[in-house]
Amino acid sequence: MSTTKRPIRRWPDEGRTDDDVALEEPLEIRVEGKPVAITMRTPGDDLDLAAGFLFSEGVIDGADDLIALRHVDQPGNPQGNTVDVLLAGGVEAHREQLERATRELYATSSCGLCGKASIDRLVVHCDPIQATFDLDPEILLTLPPKLLEQQRAFVRTGGLHGAGLFSPDGELEVAREDIGRHNAVDKVLGWRLRQNRVPVDDRILVVSSRAGFEVVQKARVAGVSVVAAAGAASSLAIDLAAESGMTLIGFLKHDRFVRYT
Amino acid sequence: MSTTKRPIRRWPDEGRTDDDVALEEPLEIRVEGKPVAITMRTPGDDLDLAAGFLFSEGVIDGADDLIALRHVDQPGNPQGNTVDVLLAGGVEAHREQLERATRELYATSSCGLCGKASIDRLVVHCDPIQATFDLDPEILLTLPPKLLEQQRAFVRTGGLHGAGLFSPDGELEVAREDIGRHNAVDKVLGWRLRQNRVPVDDRILVVSSRAGFEVVQKARVAGVSVVAAAGAASSLAIDLAAESGMTLIGFLKHDRFVRYT
Repeated sequence: MSTTKRPIRRWPDEGRTDDDVALEEPLEIRVEGKPVAITMRTPGDDLDLAAGFLFSEGVIDGADDLIALRHVDQPGNPQGNTVDVLLAGGVEAHREQLERATRELYATSSCGLCGKASIDRLVVHCDPIQATFDLDPEILLTLPPKLLEQQRAFVRTGGLHGAGLFSPDGELEVAREDIGRHNAVDKVLGWRLRQNRVPVDDRILVVSSRAGFEVVQKARVAGVSVVAAAGAASSLAIDLAAESGMTLIGFLKHDRFVRYT
Repeated sequence: MSTTKRPIRRWPDEGRTDDDVALEEPLEIRVEGKPVAITMRTPGDDLDLAAGFLFSEGVIDGADDLIALRHVDQPGNPQGNTVDVLLAGGVEAHREQLERATRELYATSSCGLCGKASIDRLVVHCDPIQATFDLDPEILLTLPPKLLEQQRAFVRTGGLHGAGLFSPDGELEVAREDIGRHNAVDKVLGWRLRQNRVPVDDRILVVSSRAGFEVVQKARVAGVSVVAAAGAASSLAIDLAAESGMTLIGFLKHDRFVRYT
């Protein structure tokens, strides 16, 4: 359930009614009981979100590091807003990455690894991006409507971001919605990770939002070779994509787009 | 400077050109040399952003707590991406709030104080919202175009959020742009705070984006009585506004809007 009802009053009609709104709840991600992050997200696909988050923030390197993911029931928290993750080798084997991720996430913006120093480190630490296919512009133009078809909650609320993976010939593989664009990306990439199918070098990642640094950073860690955004890209997102060998597309509409890299 | 140039290639034209893109850089906010937060922001009005951040996250209670704010030059960081803040009474006097803010900001989404437990605490800890004026719907409709007039970087890049304060009769007081919607709000509220003019109970806060929890939370702390968003509000944002006595407007267009509370 990614939407809920709230009473609204429309103007100029002044009619009172119940309208669908995007559900927003905090999710606490724990590793073996220890809180690592809280993110405001739209409930649903929480285990994928947790897996994708731990992967894109560098805590885990692949599906082999995941032993188990489960919701934890808490008193007074019936919505299952806590996920606990068991890692191979336990907390000890990942202590350094956990501390780095936690330290770097004392950020307000969905910041991930911050700034140009981090671009250098990402480029060094991550495997090079391998483009495994040629991008067909005509197929690219067909992807936003296909993603929108999957954005059922957005259509009802206007309040959710979408992210989807598409094959080079335009077939949808997976699509997710979330109040946070980085969460939608984590859900999609976490879904792939849990199938032990990373790097995601065989798919185009389409996002319904702008392409900020954190979206490109998450795609970079997952080895995505093509990222296409409905909106604008930021300077730092372009710089990271350029230095990573990633193809970055912006302003993807039904008849045109902009290629940054 | 909130924009920069990057080479792009348009499709279907295929022409190469340099285009304006939204500038995105990390800002590290320190209190007396100690890092408190990193946020990805658009450079400009950094001191307002730091003041607004410390205020809306509960580290300081008002302008009297601010002794000085300044950019710190760092080797290899020519852009002034670090702001250091001196607080009245020093770090010791604010240690508890700092620790709480830092602990709570180990979040990925611009999370602020998270979730329903936090709604309760915000309602308890903050002064009640006092509506000091009657909201005129006809005036409300005139505000988005006035805000857009100030969004010079958005017009060029399509990649920046705007936030502005307007008087009840529709006069613009201050407007700011940022790659992060919460940063645009922090810049506007920090500007007011540094003039020692909080609570902001005499203004309408207009945001060009959706109204998520963090936008409403920041407005709540600053005592803003009316928040109007161009996009949708989330469930948690509506709940916080409702429990705070705040008027929350969404989907504000030239001829209509939705009133949530």
